Amino acid sequence: MKTHPLDKTLALAHSDIRVGLFTGATSPDYWNMVGPFGGTTAAVMLQAVLRHPDLLGAPISATVNYASALSEGPFEILAIPVRTNRSTQHWTIQMSQAGPDGKPHVTTTGTAVSAVRRDTWGTTDLPMPEVPPPDAVQRQRIGPARAEWIQRYDMRPIIGSIPAEWDGSGDASETRMWLRDDEPRPLDFAALMAMSDCFFPRVWLRRANPVPIGTVSITTYFHVDAAMLAEVGTGHLLGVAKGQQFRNGYFDQAAQLWSEAGALLATSNQIVYFKE
Amino acid sequence: MKTHPLDKTLALAHSDIRVGLFTGATSPDYWNMVGPFGGTTAAVMLQAVLRHPDLLGAPISATVNYASALSEGPFEILAIPVRTNRSTQHWTIQMSQAGPDGKPHVTTTGTAVSAVRRDTWGTTDLPMPEVPPPDAVQRQRIGPARAEWIQRYDMRPIIGSIPAEWDGSGDASETRMWLRDDEPRPLDFAALMAMSDCFFPRVWLRRANPVPIGTVSITTYFHVDAAMLAEVGTGHLLGVAKGQQFRNGYFDQAAQLWSEAGALLATSNQIVYFKE
Repeated sequence: MKTHPLDKTLALAHSDIRVGLFTGATSPDYWNMVGPFGGTTAAVMLQAVLRHPDLLGAPISATVNYASALSEGPFEILAIPVRTNRSTQHWTIQMSQAGPDGKPHVTTTGTAVSAVRRDTWGTTDLPMPEVPPPDAVQRQRIGPARAEWIQRYDMRPIIGSIPAEWDGSGDASETRMWLRDDEPRPLDFAALMAMSDCFFPRVWLRRANPVPIGTVSITTYFHVDAAMLAEVGTGHLLGVAKGQQFRNGYFDQAAQLWSEAGALLATSNQIVYFKE
Repeated sequence: MKTHPLDKTLALAHSDIRVGLFTGATSPDYWNMVGPFGGTTAAVMLQAVLRHPDLLGAPISATVNYASALSEGPFEILAIPVRTNRSTQHWTIQMSQAGPDGKPHVTTTGTAVSAVRRDTWGTTDLPMPEVPPPDAVQRQRIGPARAEWIQRYDMRPIIGSIPAEWDGSGDASETRMWLRDDEPRPLDFAALMAMSDCFFPRVWLRRANPVPIGTVSITTYFHVDAAMLAEVGTGHLLGVAKGQQFRNGYFDQAAQLWSEAGALLATSNQIVYFKE
């Protein structure tokens, strides 16, 4: 069986599993313009937690900070369960890569919380917007044309597609789109982490101007368990993302991912540098 | 001059400033029911970064994870600038306290990003809701009656006040309120961090049922610089908080803080455990 590109990207070896030290490598399949797609970097940070033998429960939240650009090639991830309680566990995660001097440099930091969840009362106060079904929406490439990672997603924008003309005409920052892995792949936590970073930069949409940008920090909250992930399977997710505040070189983005059946699976926020 | 209670709570000494190791102590002024108010815990984590001699710029984002309850008494905070770039700096932060065995235990983890910001294009896509001015809204205590920290804030709920009756009648999870420190204190980054955690638990409002809860992780993005903070001074902020998804023991909250003049100063998200 052919290995899915996301599974290749998430592949981790470990030199010493007892200390939570993993090794992996960037993948050409998810290359962005000047480094790997940040969504897969976040996903592989989470994957180190998911692969750790001491993991308790499943992810509740993960924060990943992009401290520097990643180079093509191998990296190390150190995932440490710094505190394990009865039903929750707190993780610190750090990715490093050899720098020009041959010494390891921290490229990415993060924290995560995992938990054993129990059935409780529940509800949503953020219902899925009414949109046409995935089959009724045309697939488009909604990122930079030369970015390979764009090919790894089936993205079907309903509103807020990438501007056709960079003419400064933008007046809103919301995107709604159906998305899933291409090839389809059953949804798991790592894929959900990657998908929460699938939206092209809000500042490009808001200004119809592709200024240089870079995500600085992303936080995703997981509202799903294994059974819900299995229900979603290879179905499309509805992703909604909106900019909130753009000021002095940074903007934030609030995003949500629903299953096609309308269950809110994940909510995610990020803060992004922009140049001018 | 009398020291403001928040400044007492934020007071840090350092045994060895070169390694970013600070010591502080919990404060009875901000005591919550079973430990210190999480907002001040997050604020003092950020304060260690702000006090660090190697700090570059000002905070852009901070994530704080509550790994265990804090006991009354002293704690240590280790703040490390793991990566310093030309205009951004990435921090890891860890708080520990002596456990019952006398050994240090990690109670709180976190990361932060600071940056030197420059004037750029900007806009908001999240305008302040239209609300009556602070003077037209009555002050109320909108947290648990026995929590001392509630007294440290002047909170004036416009909608979504704490339920008068715990009768299971809740049907929405949004609060809008004016808030400021009481006594008034000029706004700074640490105060803004604390205020981003000032909202009583969304699940209490949504269900009109005060089930046991605990914030697990909070992330705040700062959209301000020192000049904007100075403009706000001791004025009220408009705080808006809303639950998004409540499922299997956890819910998330999206929050925003505007100046009275309508500038969006901070956006914040948290994920919270609830018992049943």
